Order: sequence, then structure tokens, then C-alpha cells
Amino acid sequence: MFKTEICKIFGIEYPIILGGMLWVGKADLVAAVSEAGGLGLLGAAGMTIEEIENELEKVARQTKKPFGVNIPLLRPDADEMIEASIRGGATAISTSAGNPKKYTRKIKDQGCRVLHVAANVSFARKSEDAGVDAVVAEGYEAGGHNGRDEITTMALVPQVAGAVDIPVVAAGGIADGRGLMAALALGAKGVQVGTRFLAADEAAAHPNYKEAVIQMPDNGTCVTGRTTVGPTRAIKNELTDMIIKAENEGAKPEELLEMIGEGRSAMAAIEGNCVKGTMYCGQIGGGIQGLKSAMEVINDMISEAASIIRSFQSLLQG
Amino acid sequence: MFKTEICKIFGIEYPIILGGMLWVGKADLVAAVSEAGGLGLLGAAGMTIEEIENELEKVARQTKKPFGVNIPLLRPDADEMIEASIRGGATAISTSAGNPKKYTRKIKDQGCRVLHVAANVSFARKSEDAGVDAVVAEGYEAGGHNGRDEITTMALVPQVAGAVDIPVVAAGGIADGRGLMAALALGAKGVQVGTRFLAADEAAAHPNYKEAVIQMPDNGTCVTGRTTVGPTRAIKNELTDMIIKAENEGAKPEELLEMIGEGRSAMAAIEGNCVKGTMYCGQIGGGIQGLKSAMEVINDMISEAASIIRSFQSLLQG
Repeated sequence: MFKTEICKIFGIEYPIILGGMLWVGKADLVAAVSEAGGLGLLGAAGMTIEEIENELEKVARQTKKPFGVNIPLLRPDADEMIEASIRGGATAISTSAGNPKKYTRKIKDQGCRVLHVAANVSFARKSEDAGVDAVVAEGYEAGGHNGRDEITTMALVPQVAGAVDIPVVAAGGIADGRGLMAALALGAKGVQVGTRFLAADEAAAHPNYKEAVIQMPDNGTCVTGRTTVGPTRAIKNELTDMIIKAENEGAKPEELLEMIGEGRSAMAAIEGNCVKGTMYCGQIGGGIQGLKSAMEVINDMISEAASIIRSFQSLLQG
Repeated sequence: MFKTEICKIFGIEYPIILGGMLWVGKADLVAAVSEAGGLGLLGAAGMTIEEIENELEKVARQTKKPFGVNIPLLRPDADEMIEASIRGGATAISTSAGNPKKYTRKIKDQGCRVLHVAANVSFARKSEDAGVDAVVAEGYEAGGHNGRDEITTMALVPQVAGAVDIPVVAAGGIADGRGLMAALALGAKGVQVGTRFLAADEAAAHPNYKEAVIQMPDNGTCVTGRTTVGPTRAIKNELTDMIIKAENEGAKPEELLEMIGEGRSAMAAIEGNCVKGTMYCGQIGGGIQGLKSAMEVINDMISEAASIIRSFQSLLQG
């Protein structure tokens, strides 16, 4: 069921891709998502080359199914990251935060598939021109780094799907079968899911961080960093309150950068400090009620989606 | 086809509601949407009581089908607006920007149905408690006045649908059959559509304003007024550039208010000044390619939605 072009391109059973998550998307989660029929992507942004090698070795021990790596192109060693990923058995590379032109050909020449994350139509077109196999259209509701245009999934996906010929993967706001079906209705051929997998048993996030996702209300996230590191979405806490206050008072970028500091995301994700650490999270976190295994997430998503399709039949009756 | 609870509540053929649009949603558009099987709502925000009476008389001459009025509860004469609406034949009142408790009972006692617009779960629950017949869950991508929580349609609709028992109408980012089906997948029982009807033949918007909607790209809108009049989404132009610059430079609310000035929306919508006027518009404007009649909008939306449902069948095959 639910075989789309995305399944064919990546050799997977369901068109569900794990969003690359800093500190959170490590070997166990990647393997669990792939083993359940989706495409696991290692969140390699904070990893050294050696860590990538080790994590991929761990993934390969847990699944024979396809998996991949997310690489932010801002990393000066993106080249080595790509090489290590392919050596480690990745058959898909997702690139983000940079120009897809630079690496796409090189990755594809090694027999690997390429996804690029775009937050507007113009970037999606550039990704297609660069030869990527699929483009991830990521909306403003998504957790973590965010496009400056603030285009939401609902508005972005149909516009991107209308502008490119390659398959579109919707990201942002998708945590269950309702989100999957909405994405497919909008013209996507698959979904990328972050926050729902952050609250999965196998995610490497600290239990406090997972609990914060489960507890947050619909309006529990905010965007900071518009004038400094670029917009990022995270769960509201003492840190985001402090940053927003300073931003509203017109603090200078250098003051803000000092306040944001380094290692804030590790502080939350690894140490479990949910007061002073940055908890990247999407708006759909408000709808997540409890932990699940990655396999439960995927199975529930697919069975809910199937029952939505069946329920739609009655709409066709006059 | 597409009979949902929303159709039954409002006595309409299709679950498509015209969003109340200042200066734009006048008699011709209201009548055309209702006549095509949706629910036309008069955008009464900028109208005197006499204008409401005149417009509703014009509507009643053009259609025998149900129609309604959108009333922002901030208006000090909201009471008289409601009375004039019901006298004028409205069978539905949509309230926004205020507490639904104040008027819902009074409106319902006169045999009229009530919709309330909410931009987060807590307001949706309050609307249900107040006894409204349906709640409009409006996402951040919508044009015009916007919730401070910035929750997008994709994230908001399933959370609201999970939190209330009354039917939910999705608003924000919906301009075609893809948007309609996405909304229904997310748990909505209908949609409210603004921007697509702004670019309809019967809309009272100045041709320059309609042309600006048709020409705008996906990232052609922005949000201003966060620290003053409340966030509003409009097409980027000289005016929004100026406001954003001042906001980023930490201008005081009173300076910003003077800059925003009065009558900016009329300047665009009535006089056609798209450089210095405010052009309220949703993000989905980027996907709108040309003018249509209101009937074409609705018919195209329904037939596209039906073909999406049919295309979903193949997803159920193993």
C-alpha cells in the first residue's frame, strides 16, 4: 500500500522519510525507521566523520534496508561527510542549508540518491536544475532551522508541486495519517517527519526533551534568530523567552549571538536541560500525546491514512 | 457530492465558505458564492449599518440560497451589526476578533447559525463552550488579521479537530481542490476561502489589487504589525517594506501606528494604490494564476477534489 514514486526512487515500502535531526537522529532511530519500511536519515549535522562512520556501522548491523544521511551543506567538511556516508552504506543523501548544485552530481555518480530541502519555489526549482531525485518542501511549522519566507506546508507544497517535475516530499506539520493524506492531497508523493520521530522510543533525545514535546500545547513553539543565526523553531522556555525579549527590544546581533551561545541544542537534547537548552520542535508537537516506537508511528500513520481514503468514498455520493 | 455536517448546518450544497473580506466581500461576491452552492459571507468590517442593509438587500435580490455576514467583535456597534444582518436575511453570522460568549446565544435565539474564527486550540474550545455551531480554525498562512501564535493550518486543524466535538472549518492556504482535500484529511468538515475569492470576477477589489494577487510569487506576502495593530498578512510592497524596516530598527508602537496610518486597506482595495496601500492576502496567492468567477472557483474545487479521491484508490493496492 501507499507505493508512490518516492518508494521507487529510494527502494522503500512507505513514502515516509525521517527528517535529519541534530543529536536526535542517531543509529537506533535511523535503523528503526528503515526497518519499519520508511527511509531513515542520520542527522549528521553535529557529528564528526568518525561518528558518522560509527553510527552508520551501527545502522547497518540493525537493518538490511535502505538508509541515508542528512548533511547540512554549511559544514566545511561536507565533502568528507558525503564520502563517509556512501562508504558507510547510505543509498540516499539529503542535503540542506546550501546550494544543491555543488554536490548533487558527485553523489549521484556514486550511485546514491539525492534529496534537497527547499523552503520556497525558487529553491525547489534550483534543486531540480541541480539534478536531485526529489525535493523536500519544508513549511514554516517545521522544527529546527526554517526558511526566511515563512511559507507554510499548506501553501508551499501545491506551489512547489506545480513548479517542478520531480517528486515533492512534504515536511512540516506531519505526524500522523491525517498529515500524510493532507500532504498527498496537496500534490506531494511522500512526507518527511521529524517531531513525531523525536518522540519515538528509539530517538536519541534526552527523556526530558521527549517529555517536553508530549506536554507542549498547540502554541508551545516559537521562532527566534530571525536577525542572527536565521529563524529556528523550538519549544518555548526560559531561553526562548529571553531571546524574544531581547529581539523585541532591538538587541544587536552580536548581543543576541552571545545570549544564544553555543551548545544550547546539545544542552537540551543530550543533557536534558529543558530550561536553558534549545529544544527544536515543530508545531505539530502539540498534537503528540505519547511515546511510540518508530514502527508504531509508521504503522499507525499508514493504517490511519488508509481509513481516511476509505472514508472519502462517501463524499463522492450525491 | 461532498455533503458534510457543515452543509447540513448551513443548508448549503458544498462545504465551502467565503471568508469575510474587508472592502472585497460585498454583495455581488456573497451572492455569487451562495448561488454556486457555497456560503457567501459579507465582509462587514468596514461597513456602516446602512451599508450592511443595502448590501444584504442586493444579495437577497441575486440569490434565494443561504448567506451570512462576518462581524469582527471589536466593532463597538457589533450588536446593531448583528441585528441588521439578521433583519437583512442572513442565516449565518461569522464572528471573529473577540469573545464568542458575548453574542452567540443572542444570535442563535434568532434562528441564525454561528461560526467563530479561532487561531488556536484554546480559543476553539472557548468557541465550543459558547455554543457556536462550527469553529473556523484559521492558520498563519491566511491573509489579513492573524493569530499571534502563528500556528499553521496543517498543524492547527488536526489539533482543533481533536479538541472539540463541533465541526471544524479549515482556513488559510486553501484555494483549490488540493487544499479542500487536505483540509478534509486533517479532520475539517469544510473550508473557508478568502484569497481565491479575492481574485474572483465578482470581488469588489480594485483590478490592480486582483492583479497583484495573480502576479505575486509564493513568498510574496509578509506579516507586519506584531507589536502594534496585531499581526496582519499582506502582499509585500513599499508600505510593508517601510513598516518592516522600522520594526526591525526597533521603532516605537506609536511611530509604527502613524506609519501604518488609517485607510491603508481602502487605498489598495478601493483606489487601487498597490504601492502605498495594504493588500491583505494569503500565502496561497502565489499559486493563483488568473481570475475566475466564483462559480468556476467552486466547481473547479469540487471536481478537482473528486478526482483526488479517485486517484487515492490506487494507494490502497498492495
